[in-house]
Amino acid sequence: MTVTELTESTCDVLIIGAGPAGLMLATWMARCGINARIIDKRSTKIFCGQADGLQIRSLEIFDSFGFADRAVKEANHLLEFCMWNPGSDGVIRRSDRIPDVMVGLSRFTEIVLHQGRIERFFLDHIKKHSNDSIRVERGVIPETLSFNEEILDDHSQDSYPISVKLRYLTEEEATPAQSKGSATRDGLFRSNLAEDDTDELIRKSKEKDGTSELVRAKYDVGCDGAHSWTRKQLGFQLEGEPTDFIWGVLADIIPITDFPDIRMRTAVHSASSGSLMVIPRESKLVRLYIQLIEVKPDASGRADRSKITPEVIIKAAQKIIAPYSLTYEYCDWWTAYQIGQRVGTNFDYRSRVFLAGDAVHTHSPKAGQGMNVSMQDAYNLGWKLGLVAKGIAKPDILKTYQSERRRIAQDLIDFDHKFSRLFSGRPAKDILDETGVSMSEFKEAFVKGNLFATGLSVDYGASMLVAKDGDAADQGDGTKVSTTNPTKVVCRQDLATNIRLGMRFPSFKVLNHADARPWHFQTKLKSDGRFRLIVFAGNVLSPVQKSRLDGFCKFLDSSSFIRPHLHKHIAILTLHSSKRMETELQRDFPEVLHPFDAHTGWDYDSVFVDDESYHEGHGEAYKGYGVDKETGCVVITRPDQYVGFIGSLDEDGRAGVEEYFKGVFV
Amino acid sequence: MTVTELTESTCDVLIIGAGPAGLMLATWMARCGINARIIDKRSTKIFCGQADGLQIRSLEIFDSFGFADRAVKEANHLLEFCMWNPGSDGVIRRSDRIPDVMVGLSRFTEIVLHQGRIERFFLDHIKKHSNDSIRVERGVIPETLSFNEEILDDHSQDSYPISVKLRYLTEEEATPAQSKGSATRDGLFRSNLAEDDTDELIRKSKEKDGTSELVRAKYDVGCDGAHSWTRKQLGFQLEGEPTDFIWGVLADIIPITDFPDIRMRTAVHSASSGSLMVIPRESKLVRLYIQLIEVKPDASGRADRSKITPEVIIKAAQKIIAPYSLTYEYCDWWTAYQIGQRVGTNFDYRSRVFLAGDAVHTHSPKAGQGMNVSMQDAYNLGWKLGLVAKGIAKPDILKTYQSERRRIAQDLIDFDHKFSRLFSGRPAKDILDETGVSMSEFKEAFVKGNLFATGLSVDYGASMLVAKDGDAADQGDGTKVSTTNPTKVVCRQDLATNIRLGMRFPSFKVLNHADARPWHFQTKLKSDGRFRLIVFAGNVLSPVQKSRLDGFCKFLDSSSFIRPHLHKHIAILTLHSSKRMETELQRDFPEVLHPFDAHTGWDYDSVFVDDESYHEGHGEAYKGYGVDKETGCVVITRPDQYVGFIGSLDEDGRAGVEEYFKGVFV
Repeated sequence: MTVTELTESTCDVLIIGAGPAGLMLATWMARCGINARIIDKRSTKIFCGQADGLQIRSLEIFDSFGFADRAVKEANHLLEFCMWNPGSDGVIRRSDRIPDVMVGLSRFTEIVLHQGRIERFFLDHIKKHSNDSIRVERGVIPETLSFNEEILDDHSQDSYPISVKLRYLTEEEATPAQSKGSATRDGLFRSNLAEDDTDELIRKSKEKDGTSELVRAKYDVGCDGAHSWTRKQLGFQLEGEPTDFIWGVLADIIPITDFPDIRMRTAVHSASSGSLMVIPRESKLVRLYIQLIEVKPDASGRADRSKITPEVIIKAAQKIIAPYSLTYEYCDWWTAYQIGQRVGTNFDYRSRVFLAGDAVHTHSPKAGQGMNVSMQDAYNLGWKLGLVAKGIAKPDILKTYQSERRRIAQDLIDFDHKFSRLFSGRPAKDILDETGVSMSEFKEAFVKGNLFATGLSVDYGASMLVAKDGDAADQGDGTKVSTTNPTKVVCRQDLATNIRLGMRFPSFKVLNHADARPWHFQTKLKSDGRFRLIVFAGNVLSPVQKSRLDGFCKFLDSSSFIRPHLHKHIAILTLHSSKRMETELQRDFPEVLHPFDAHTGWDYDSVFVDDESYHEGHGEAYKGYGVDKETGCVVITRPDQYVGFIGSLDEDGRAGVEEYFKGVFV
Repeated sequence: MTVTELTESTCDVLIIGAGPAGLMLATWMARCGINARIIDKRSTKIFCGQADGLQIRSLEIFDSFGFADRAVKEANHLLEFCMWNPGSDGVIRRSDRIPDVMVGLSRFTEIVLHQGRIERFFLDHIKKHSNDSIRVERGVIPETLSFNEEILDDHSQDSYPISVKLRYLTEEEATPAQSKGSATRDGLFRSNLAEDDTDELIRKSKEKDGTSELVRAKYDVGCDGAHSWTRKQLGFQLEGEPTDFIWGVLADIIPITDFPDIRMRTAVHSASSGSLMVIPRESKLVRLYIQLIEVKPDASGRADRSKITPEVIIKAAQKIIAPYSLTYEYCDWWTAYQIGQRVGTNFDYRSRVFLAGDAVHTHSPKAGQGMNVSMQDAYNLGWKLGLVAKGIAKPDILKTYQSERRRIAQDLIDFDHKFSRLFSGRPAKDILDETGVSMSEFKEAFVKGNLFATGLSVDYGASMLVAKDGDAADQGDGTKVSTTNPTKVVCRQDLATNIRLGMRFPSFKVLNHADARPWHFQTKLKSDGRFRLIVFAGNVLSPVQKSRLDGFCKFLDSSSFIRPHLHKHIAILTLHSSKRMETELQRDFPEVLHPFDAHTGWDYDSVFVDDESYHEGHGEAYKGYGVDKETGCVVITRPDQYVGFIGSLDEDGRAGVEEYFKGVFV
């Protein structure tokens, strides 16, 4: 019989899994000042089998935390997508070049970078903002999950209804076998061709003396991957089917090749040897996705992974890319996977346990979506958990997580289903070749999928957090999301035609009124856990408008519901449209828009102007946002930059602002 | 009698003083792989009495090392310069607003940041690039400097003609008195109102047991400030006179004020209470320079510093800025200085010992020049020392340091002399008031001085490093700089009308040919100790031009003088003007322009194109550089980005390239 020490502790939020989803969640916890823990069964931080693509929306999110610049600096930038396929002679040639992402969407474009670096940015940020109190605890595995049913619906401050027993692994147990020595690392152990090892780890660990800990938590989030232990404890399923398509990955090699587009994002469809995709990376590295047409699933539906080696993969690549030569001397690691799309039945267990990332959606990696959608799941959930755990927001808002994100996962799976089939299909020989994939259809699908892939098309449905019209269940994944506030908030989408309710607040360049510095306005919507009340003040030099603005500000100052939350949970940003040089901060803007502090004076970072800059042109922000330059409007964004409310500065808008926040705050 | 241990050592370059000039020099040493040491008498890294302005050219230099982004991110940006002076009623009002730096000069503008952060960027960079082998040795003071005359002109690899005896201070000795405890730190101990303490430190240190070291060095650089010990050992002088103007500095405070332009760079001339200048900084800080008209120099010409306190300074400021209020609760430190301009008689002792920074030029701080010109001194010297110490370049090039930089120091002193008088003068009451300063004259001087202040107007004279016409002594500080190469290099300024010989290589946006990513072309001229051969390949799709380009590349490959230096000491950058989508790297560009490596394949970061980008417009680089899009040209830049040669791709240009490098390399 073995001996196990058992200690006990409490924490507000327990995060299981320290991949990009878990780290994003921990980042929010650090920013919101939550007592959180994050554990991971692996001992080693950077291992292979990793994603590398960062889509536009992820970069905007990174920027809201303040570390997008690090990613942008270190990453390779993908600007062009090149398509190669057989000419009439059957030899591949470049048939098309198009921008990798559509023009004019954002200040960012798609970039690719080693996942280890991305995790480093998160870890540095978590360390800084949690005062080093949130650290990834590695080599720790969850063993049991149970609930105290009596207090499960009690979200008060001293209620810890969740119990998770943790087991501490030895360094040896926590180190994946493939990390133990070989030169070119085999990432198959993490691919969907391999079995999960969690149960085995627990079983083995139990055979000897060890240390366990019983953690009582308010909330628990499973960011524990496609084989999610948390999901299994809850009895939730991943629904969907694998395909017959097997792809190998050489990730990442320094290629030696005369293929002209090796530094472009490139799709090659060969006549009859399969397809490959080129993802050029930083430091001369390239990731190659290579279809293995000679490897087939067996009767059980799963491919025999013993048949897949780097030699098999590079030979397949050479056939596809012929007549160009392709070899390499350096390969960091390699893997293979079987294409399939699956989505979780539930993302949420009674607003107490949540699932995010690969635990609730798996698909093929070639569209660079996995890590991004996973991080965005956690980005959606984190601030809600933070505000509820601190007793600021109503627990009801937690229901919007499944409603909003499961819908995205469903869209993603549909997108990937279509895209991966077009990718793996043999190119059509001619217009009569019905079993082949038409290259014009492939291009069209790429262009159509482009906006989706950036993450910018996300459009959350109606709820107490998004005061839009229509049926909440229809607009989400079917979950019933109450709108709690008794009188329905009236929204005025017409006052800001390009600021779409439910979508992320777009960005245009504006000037800080006090120092004339140009900023992308979105960068002022920091992820600090606060809602933003964005006052489009209009033309403050017009007496009519000035009185409207004064009235609105007087309402803010005098509302007994809003006043206590101002600046603390609701930050105010002002954007006016008068000439900067004709307006003065003190004279023309009420104090609530740039509050005074006895120790540090006035706030100079809250009032902005839509005017010409000296060095970077005119942002034309009012035009871009679709807001009237005379009369303006007011917009509420959630702590994740999604638009929750739009109203006028008049009486109806003021009432709307108050109603909106009554639906959210306790 | 005291006991002193004496050890002995050698190093290639000994740097005395670890302020911005010393750190810049150490940065070059790290990048060039030189065995260098850097010492500083102070124990503490960040102390007060510090500069904060970073001019455009300094940022371009930081960018060439790769850390400009850190400064740009953390700093406050100065966009507008506001001028306040008395109206007809004698009350101050804003009379003008102009851009802080001229539009269109560079991708950077002026920024301000705590000097401690700037030093941190240097220290991180030095650590990384020297493999932690170059570290600032603090609390170390030089005691004696002597030479072995016999080998002073022998620049061979094993000749160490300089001996410097170093003494190690205790922590107590090395800590400035003002750092020992007080809340608001008094920076007067470093101001020009205070005596130097070096001799005193040496004397006291000798009174007790201690450790000394005898360092034999090839080169020694005194970056040891206005009281330079190194300068004194050499018997060189600073020439110039102090004025009667005394200014106080509150640096840095968080002001509490209703003055509207507290976040702008602002000059206030009051009717009769003196002037002040506002420099807004990061984190709500502001630096205020305040004229102290009631403090006067005594008979000896120096102000009594005991009369200057923070209270005296803020009261002076309040009088100047009235009727606006001005107070503060937080003040980091304060100091005062007496305006004067002085320049060193010599920057160089026999190409063995060099002086840089405040050691050879002092002036008033308000134009934000001191730290910048000091760093740029060291930036000019560092690569020359590096290449000579490694035996790659001829020792003669070291003479260009004094010729180039003493001339700049003279220009700086002239600029500051004029500017500081306009700043400290009482504003003229009207056009007949001849003793007052005319505000239109002040504005005009600011605009005229603007280009100079950015650091971009630097235009080095003729030498073996700058193949321009005219008299070398005339164009420099009078130093005779030989051009060593027997046949004078013929330069073709007409082939690149906006790439000026002797000036820094300007920047326009270009695209990487292999991946379509836009870059500011100047960012590809990294400070890695290499010259750049910039091939403006022109229209490579024209057969005539293609054959010209092929001929030029064949010359590079076949020149027995140039070939061994290619890629190692001379990096090649190509910019062509054909359409990107009609050209192919392998097909249209000879291998020497994108060399092949057996382990890592082709180079994809050397060939660029002047074409439309997807997201950032068309850089119009050929137009910007003033180069013919059909026929191109070739440009040589020095390792510091200054233009040394311009020629055609034809026979005469090829001969010129060869002659240029024969004048530089051993």
